[in-house]
Amino acid sequence: MANSWATLGVDLHLEPTGPGVRRGLTDALREAVRTGRLAPGTRLPSSRTLAADLGIARNTVAEAYADLVAEGWLTARQGSGTRVADRAITPPNPAAPRPRERSRPAHDLLPGLPDLASFPRAEWLKAARRALAAAPNQALDYGDPRGRVELRTALAGYLARARGVRTDPDRILICAGISHGLRILSALLRARGASTIAVESYGLHVHWDLLADTGLRTVPLPFDERGTNPGELTDEAAVLLTPAHQFPMGGTLHRDRRAAVVDWARRTGGLVVEDDYDGEFRYDRQPVGALQGLDPDHVVYAGTASKSLAPGLRLAWLVLPAGLMEEAAKAKGAADTCGALDQLTLAEFLTSGAYDRHVRAARLRYRRRRDALVAELARRAPQVHATGIAAGLHVVLRLPPGTEQETLRAAAWQGLAVHGLHRYQHPEATVERRDALVVGYGTPSDHAWSGALDALCAALPESPTA
Amino acid sequence: MANSWATLGVDLHLEPTGPGVRRGLTDALREAVRTGRLAPGTRLPSSRTLAADLGIARNTVAEAYADLVAEGWLTARQGSGTRVADRAITPPNPAAPRPRERSRPAHDLLPGLPDLASFPRAEWLKAARRALAAAPNQALDYGDPRGRVELRTALAGYLARARGVRTDPDRILICAGISHGLRILSALLRARGASTIAVESYGLHVHWDLLADTGLRTVPLPFDERGTNPGELTDEAAVLLTPAHQFPMGGTLHRDRRAAVVDWARRTGGLVVEDDYDGEFRYDRQPVGALQGLDPDHVVYAGTASKSLAPGLRLAWLVLPAGLMEEAAKAKGAADTCGALDQLTLAEFLTSGAYDRHVRAARLRYRRRRDALVAELARRAPQVHATGIAAGLHVVLRLPPGTEQETLRAAAWQGLAVHGLHRYQHPEATVERRDALVVGYGTPSDHAWSGALDALCAALPESPTA
Repeated sequence: MANSWATLGVDLHLEPTGPGVRRGLTDALREAVRTGRLAPGTRLPSSRTLAADLGIARNTVAEAYADLVAEGWLTARQGSGTRVADRAITPPNPAAPRPRERSRPAHDLLPGLPDLASFPRAEWLKAARRALAAAPNQALDYGDPRGRVELRTALAGYLARARGVRTDPDRILICAGISHGLRILSALLRARGASTIAVESYGLHVHWDLLADTGLRTVPLPFDERGTNPGELTDEAAVLLTPAHQFPMGGTLHRDRRAAVVDWARRTGGLVVEDDYDGEFRYDRQPVGALQGLDPDHVVYAGTASKSLAPGLRLAWLVLPAGLMEEAAKAKGAADTCGALDQLTLAEFLTSGAYDRHVRAARLRYRRRRDALVAELARRAPQVHATGIAAGLHVVLRLPPGTEQETLRAAAWQGLAVHGLHRYQHPEATVERRDALVVGYGTPSDHAWSGALDALCAALPESPTA
Repeated sequence: MANSWATLGVDLHLEPTGPGVRRGLTDALREAVRTGRLAPGTRLPSSRTLAADLGIARNTVAEAYADLVAEGWLTARQGSGTRVADRAITPPNPAAPRPRERSRPAHDLLPGLPDLASFPRAEWLKAARRALAAAPNQALDYGDPRGRVELRTALAGYLARARGVRTDPDRILICAGISHGLRILSALLRARGASTIAVESYGLHVHWDLLADTGLRTVPLPFDERGTNPGELTDEAAVLLTPAHQFPMGGTLHRDRRAAVVDWARRTGGLVVEDDYDGEFRYDRQPVGALQGLDPDHVVYAGTASKSLAPGLRLAWLVLPAGLMEEAAKAKGAADTCGALDQLTLAEFLTSGAYDRHVRAARLRYRRRRDALVAELARRAPQVHATGIAAGLHVVLRLPPGTEQETLRAAAWQGLAVHGLHRYQHPEATVERRDALVVGYGTPSDHAWSGALDALCAALPESPTA
């Protein structure tokens, strides 16, 4: 352990190479700040110095610093270097894995959140009142591990109409989020003896980690301009896809590939898991229907209220092939059924039309934001390109080659929380290097949006104000 | 496979001896009815005939029949034998493990439920309105895996005041029920390399199964008139107890044994898990304080809203020793956090005093029911004794030796769902044979209560009307 690092008095256990280095460094630094071993105000060594001391790439250190700035543990100001943040002495969430509340950047463009300020509180309460008035006493009992029948019935109708899902209420399992649904499926696959699941080259580490935790190895499929290529699928037990709106790249899966993945499933008995996290939000045309509609016997459809309403509801749903429900309910267990009242309220929200009204309003809001973002980029940063379809709550901005890291550092200096694309790349993926930002435009409230957009433009390479 | 069984056309895979026989038989019969292989109205062979055919004890068959009558799959009428129920052709819950909703007996005295008709709907909605009005937007985010800070803060105050629990909000983990909490603790213990957990001789199979599913062997402790005897604890990783109100036996853990179990934990580093499922409901005096108060560093306290309000809320809490939160939050995972709105509503319900008011009213209701039950027994069935302290939502009725099975059959004939004590006995427990019923007097609504009590008295041995 070399000088400046030892001087900081921080224990660090690092694999010398591989994708784990950056995460290990980030975790070690975060822990050192959290526990006070790195005191507030402490100036950290420059990324160049620390990288030389540790014998790792300078970019790795710079990326770890940028992550911790985005999370609020460190501050970076031009001229005064990188320091431990003052507020880091009493973190609100010491034990929480990946807590978001810890991070309070000036501008938040992290993907994954809808605009929480537009949650329809009054409408939701109205639905809750109606739902509770209509509910039988039995609804307050332990209940069905699959979830309340009222919600499953409402969803069966809604999903058929809005997403082309073919199902009936008996094949829907309510869960507490798509991650929870994946954990259920993962346990089910493991119980069947599965050992690998194919995933996309780009996606969420939290999903891959969750699959790995239950013992499934994740194998990334190739990715190109038609999206994920299922041609290399062989004897994997399942494949996890985002066909309607690849996360985060933003394209739709080409129709030949939709057909190919279903063919694979029929041929091998493999399971297709369709993560339709933001299927409601397409701005230029009717959204492409769910892959599940092609073959309900081989595709598990996963949807959620986390993007259309709010993650705090903890309500999501799996639509399962016939015959899989018993295994899935067993894998879920009766222990963690979701609260009945929120389920009944969402059912009422769906059947009363309030859900459709809310989604229409949200679609308009996000579409305007996306349009404003694209227009502002064309004006202020013509060298940066918004890619993907006009949909969802995030956009990938392609950057000039080699500029992702400097852009992230510039964003940190702007007090802007935003992610680089490389963070969403599977460690084993073999894809061409793409420098890009993943910008969540759903996250800021309406009044914070223009400030966030301004900060983003200021951070982009060669933009007029940077 | 012998005659009458083969005639029924039912496949049956049975271990020839041991505690699994009855469950195997019950499951096989239920499955045969559910799938229609045993058609509605089919008359089953007598328990004597089937037992002889299968080479198992007659009581085992009689118990399996009685279970399925209580669950609504079979009907039993004196004179016409045991038949497949008519309504069994379209079970509402084909895939659900242990669903309660399937069972609609005429009278329900199964333990484990409060009176759902008395759930304070109007007060709950008021609290929901206030909570949602006060909540920051951030409350609708993914949130802290430990649960909303508002609820953890309200609980810390309430538990200190009502149950003598010593804690602060940072040591409380919100979960979706005590079973969910046990699964979290079980995963935590397994991650530490634990292999066994001591349990009580009497308890819930659903808990033991859940612990076994994660790989922990459950070892029952001896039980006598002072309650569970922790004297035989050695190097188990943990012990699961119901100190305030043993479930189902109904006593409190003797003070010497409270001290002994804490001594064991301090000496060995073992963990005490205190299941305080109905600590609010004591009718004769102030309830004994939580064991956790003796040693917050060695006792995990588990409480729930399932008995005090309703299981449908899916809200419970663990109070953890300092230093255990990080492991517990990791074992829980972020995937199945409880819904934020119900958490905020319960927090408001607690801090506004509505919870205390509701519990006081419920205490009065259940106390009256218990008093009426004891008085009616003294009058109509003096040979039957209510045991345990005046507390909770259930009572154990000691029966004359050798009469438990015939009483359960008589109860089934009365359309009465009630459990025998032997159902709550750990398969490996070495305890003296106790013939008894476990009667849940919380379950019926007020208007159904007297009818249920009447049916109970009619089913008891040597009662005037039986």
